[in-house]
Amino acid sequence: MKKVKRGFASDNNSGVHPEVMQAIQSVNKGHVIGYGDDEYTDRAVTLVKKHFGKEAQVFFVFNGTGANVLSCQAATRPFNSIICAETSHLHEDECGAPEKFTGCKVLTVPSRHGKISVPSIEKLVYGIGFEHHSQPRIISITQATELGTVYSLSEIRVIADYAHENNMILHMDGARLSNAVVHLDSTFRLSTADQGVDILSFGLTKNGGMLCEAVIFFNPDLVPNFKYIRKQGMQLGSKMRFISAQFIALLQNDLWKRNAYHANSMARLLAERLAEFPQIKITHKVEANGVFVIVPPAIVSLLREKFFFYYWNENISEIRLMTSFDTAEDDITGFIAELRSLLGQ
Amino acid sequence: MKKVKRGFASDNNSGVHPEVMQAIQSVNKGHVIGYGDDEYTDRAVTLVKKHFGKEAQVFFVFNGTGANVLSCQAATRPFNSIICAETSHLHEDECGAPEKFTGCKVLTVPSRHGKISVPSIEKLVYGIGFEHHSQPRIISITQATELGTVYSLSEIRVIADYAHENNMILHMDGARLSNAVVHLDSTFRLSTADQGVDILSFGLTKNGGMLCEAVIFFNPDLVPNFKYIRKQGMQLGSKMRFISAQFIALLQNDLWKRNAYHANSMARLLAERLAEFPQIKITHKVEANGVFVIVPPAIVSLLREKFFFYYWNENISEIRLMTSFDTAEDDITGFIAELRSLLGQ
Amino acid sequence: MKKVKRGFASDNNSGVHPEVMQAIQSVNKGHVIGYGDDEYTDRAVTLVKKHFGKEAQVFFVFNGTGANVLSCQAATRPFNSIICAETSHLHEDECGAPEKFTGCKVLTVPSRHGKISVPSIEKLVYGIGFEHHSQPRIISITQATELGTVYSLSEIRVIADYAHENNMILHMDGARLSNAVVHLDSTFRLSTADQGVDILSFGLTKNGGMLCEAVIFFNPDLVPNFKYIRKQGMQLGSKMRFISAQFIALLQNDLWKRNAYHANSMARLLAERLAEFPQIKITHKVEANGVFVIVPPAIVSLLREKFFFYYWNENISEIRLMTSFDTAEDDITGFIAELRSLLGQ
Amino acid sequence: MKKVKRGFASDNNSGVHPEVMQAIQSVNKGHVIGYGDDEYTDRAVTLVKKHFGKEAQVFFVFNGTGANVLSCQAATRPFNSIICAETSHLHEDECGAPEKFTGCKVLTVPSRHGKISVPSIEKLVYGIGFEHHSQPRIISITQATELGTVYSLSEIRVIADYAHENNMILHMDGARLSNAVVHLDSTFRLSTADQGVDILSFGLTKNGGMLCEAVIFFNPDLVPNFKYIRKQGMQLGSKMRFISAQFIALLQNDLWKRNAYHANSMARLLAERLAEFPQIKITHKVEANGVFVIVPPAIVSLLREKFFFYYWNENISEIRLMTSFDTAEDDITGFIAELRSLLGQ
Repeated sequence: MKKVKRGFASDNNSGVHPEVMQAIQSVNKGHVIGYGDDEYTDRAVTLVKKHFGKEAQVFFVFNGTGANVLSCQAATRPFNSIICAETSHLHEDECGAPEKFTGCKVLTVPSRHGKISVPSIEKLVYGIGFEHHSQPRIISITQATELGTVYSLSEIRVIADYAHENNMILHMDGARLSNAVVHLDSTFRLSTADQGVDILSFGLTKNGGMLCEAVIFFNPDLVPNFKYIRKQGMQLGSKMRFISAQFIALLQNDLWKRNAYHANSMARLLAERLAEFPQIKITHKVEANGVFVIVPPAIVSLLREKFFFYYWNENISEIRLMTSFDTAEDDITGFIAELRSLLGQ
Repeated sequence: MKKVKRGFASDNNSGVHPEVMQAIQSVNKGHVIGYGDDEYTDRAVTLVKKHFGKEAQVFFVFNGTGANVLSCQAATRPFNSIICAETSHLHEDECGAPEKFTGCKVLTVPSRHGKISVPSIEKLVYGIGFEHHSQPRIISITQATELGTVYSLSEIRVIADYAHENNMILHMDGARLSNAVVHLDSTFRLSTADQGVDILSFGLTKNGGMLCEAVIFFNPDLVPNFKYIRKQGMQLGSKMRFISAQFIALLQNDLWKRNAYHANSMARLLAERLAEFPQIKITHKVEANGVFVIVPPAIVSLLREKFFFYYWNENISEIRLMTSFDTAEDDITGFIAELRSLLGQ
Repeated sequence: MKKVKRGFASDNNSGVHPEVMQAIQSVNKGHVIGYGDDEYTDRAVTLVKKHFGKEAQVFFVFNGTGANVLSCQAATRPFNSIICAETSHLHEDECGAPEKFTGCKVLTVPSRHGKISVPSIEKLVYGIGFEHHSQPRIISITQATELGTVYSLSEIRVIADYAHENNMILHMDGARLSNAVVHLDSTFRLSTADQGVDILSFGLTKNGGMLCEAVIFFNPDLVPNFKYIRKQGMQLGSKMRFISAQFIALLQNDLWKRNAYHANSMARLLAERLAEFPQIKITHKVEANGVFVIVPPAIVSLLREKFFFYYWNENISEIRLMTSFDTAEDDITGFIAELRSLLGQ
Repeated sequence: MKKVKRGFASDNNSGVHPEVMQAIQSVNKGHVIGYGDDEYTDRAVTLVKKHFGKEAQVFFVFNGTGANVLSCQAATRPFNSIICAETSHLHEDECGAPEKFTGCKVLTVPSRHGKISVPSIEKLVYGIGFEHHSQPRIISITQATELGTVYSLSEIRVIADYAHENNMILHMDGARLSNAVVHLDSTFRLSTADQGVDILSFGLTKNGGMLCEAVIFFNPDLVPNFKYIRKQGMQLGSKMRFISAQFIALLQNDLWKRNAYHANSMARLLAERLAEFPQIKITHKVEANGVFVIVPPAIVSLLREKFFFYYWNENISEIRLMTSFDTAEDDITGFIAELRSLLGQ
């Protein structure tokens, strides 16, 4: 049997927050109509609108890949292109699902600490109206980024304005949006709709949920056919109430905020403790729940015997440490102690 | 708030069996690696092999659409065709997902009480080697059928042999396989692998699960690339243990059998009681957990005020009544009483 | 070396009309811009508008498959369905290209002598707004049909009206439109735009051209993105002038009409001569350039030693005989003589 | 009417070589079977084998986009990736056709003067066996490159070896292969099959043909299903003999070589004359039939009033000048004279 070992491998290695589990259980009574036409889903939708604005239109899906790919499908025809960071999950970790499902070209721009900006994006926006060239249609940013950094509100606004001035759409991959909003000390609405985001992949799975992902539209033009896109995209759940229950639990008493606040705090604490080691270099600002550090190559495998974590860039011995809603101070203390021991301090 | 009303609309209107819910809760501790590389998934896989044979290779997915479509993708190239019943879920209820994802042509044959047979299939098997013609590659059958009937083991064998003799693959949509196996008084393995099924969409969601679907391969040639197909198909779950837990609960103490046995029994009871009404005509043999009846048109909407159910064929006033693991005898008694009252008896 | 043998196999077994060849040669001078931005293409477009109405917008493509598939792509999203005759080329002879490229479901209705009509179409128009169901979007008819018959203008009108009342689009596969227009003693415009056709696959290859196919839009809403669809659909020719020249030759001095008139006349003559044999049964009205007959099975292979032709339905010994712009009376006389000899008359 | 103006815009702005036109005419007699089952196609295939080796298997298609995209489809599943130069036609000029048709991810590496090499390719070859990552499958190079340079035989060999060692396939986009072979003073076979190329997009349209493109396989494993891929890919011509005739004309008496030799010579001459201007900078070696130069921005539009040509990179006032089989010395003399006049020399 595989040994269960705690660590910092990914926020999806955590289980489900007890309040979420409780909510899942609590909706398990009697019969309700399938596929989302039920009171729990209604309540979850209402809560989404409370947080994101009443114009927000939400569709629950199964996973982040589904949310990202169907968001793209909603706004594109196959002759379009999608622009994103070369570090983005959309480009790097979906096994080509965006290309397969939308038929679009995915174009990447170099990221600075996970973020992209207009000067690099606009190099890809040309050939408009030229039939030999895929027509740019979506800019996709990740908030918080894959590198643990967070776009400021004005950074989002600038990209959104650029997108709209060029007849494009701004998509946000918000698999860790809660962590970003907590870092910004903002609200969901202020961080998305109010800055010009058109479509959001909204994920709470990594923040204490079990299977808790949604596509949220702030641009109503994109909505009319989305129900068919979700169904044809194999992302429509039959016993929807059990997904909706998770959104209710996470959105109704600010559990999303408590969880993200905790994870972010633990990342900050971990970073502070790691900063004490002169042999270790933190490579990106710690703004959300990820800490990226270069560690002496010799200790990596020894350290991994005790704690789960992944290489980010093996060539430079950079590792990724993710905290979660259930990271305990003890996890950090233990990790630092082990590190100290391995580094002979 | 939507009124919660019991009924016979669908087996997916039921909740989750308490033992399944208990299992989901019981795996919610500590950290495990995501995407299925965890001990619970190992245990679930072992149980699948116990029931289906040790050669069976299983991949958990999110829903029945995903299982069906990815099964087809595993065995086809876009120039192939897929042959199924005109009543099949694959053709009728997936919003074209098979065509979209595989690029294949889906061809239908008329069904007799939900079943297809070689004489009608072979009319579509021609033009082999002719480049203008989509090359037949998959025969897909549904067990139990969408009309509540069940293929006998020898009926499956005959289709499988025909498929293999013609260089084709037999896929089984087993969204209600448990109900079929119970009706046949057989085992999972005897009803699938041993009769020549190559790929199975195995669903337990309708049988007491929450999100409990899998693709099972009995033909090892189709497996090597399937992990990529699942990921690119947006059907790979991150916190996989919560899906695996459901399979463990349903497969380890024959909960699948108890649930299906109950649902089938309730269908039989319902059918027996309905047979007492001369104005009501049962249209298909009641072998699994569905009862199809033609009722006097005048009473349908009145009946629906009290009980959930769907029209099957509104033109002839045919309705579909599905039972489930949680159907109570009281549900049937109440339904019959209401019917009696409406029919003035 | 393969023996060159005349016959009635297909109108694409003929070569190119000398006036078309002459036109191709005549544009072979100097440099012009590629991809259609040249004077010859301008002239061809002008001629298309002269025949089809000035609102017609035309895009030249490479072949009939391309014209049909890109027409469908222009008017659909992948969650749509396309309704056509079970005998249609779109369904039967494109190796699944429509499904592959559009992602749509192709649904068939039984044809009567190659034609479909509203009562059979409307059986497939249901589930509107229901997310599990592919949404019907295109009705495609073939004019002249694959069985040598021709829709009357009012038959087209009725289908067009039905399509538009149901938010659908009427596509016409006009691979043999010239033959139909000649039979109807009508004009291109009256036979298409004026009856409500939205998109036309217009083919002149079978009518004396070499590579002479186009998509013509009468519904301007479908046009804006079509240039990208054609390019991404691999159907944009670089040295376009040589395609345009063919349209010029066929459209400017009514060569299309002379060719089609001749082919139709030859078909009628052939049918008249075949009608003299009591052992031979003509199975469809001879309205365009195809003659379908059931002949005694014993003579088919003997007959084929002398003349090219294809079985249509081998089970009933039905063969298809196509005439062309270059069919000579001698071809018919010789065929009849051979038949007479084989039938011992 | 658009003014016909000679120039250096593209080798596809030229017409058709008279010998090719003559060949097209010469096959225009009698009936032959459609879709390539004719004597002329047989002869063209034989000639291809004569030049490329008897193992070569060839399929004629309509255009370079078709040849490139179908080549990719033959060797991939949608979870694969295709690696090419960022300057490649496959990436830059197909309006996303490769992604749309194959579903694969297209990844680019920076090119040096249009060429790519293993050190940059291998940065993209990772994540093998990791289900979240598109699996690299094709390396595509262009010969001659889009920048008028030519890979040496050993440069090709090195990439081919790398591809095969990594279970990948080498595709060559040979839209201007003739120009490269002439530059290398080699043969078709030595420049392709013998260096390890698996699939070739072989184009003669730019070298005096009209519609003269093919996919040639040197790796027999990729062939078996290709006839379906071509048909479903909308690239199967009905009156194939007129395409085959072009291949015959160009391949039988070394017309391909005469044409390419002339075009290359004209490019060299043009480059020599341009080198006389100190204000003009040649940006890439002139090895095939393209000359890339940076010219003073002020003269570009004035120059374009007299001669067709395109900007390559407007930001740095770089223009592309293509020569062709029909470029006359007078064209060059006139161009240089105009330039001299504009530059006030």
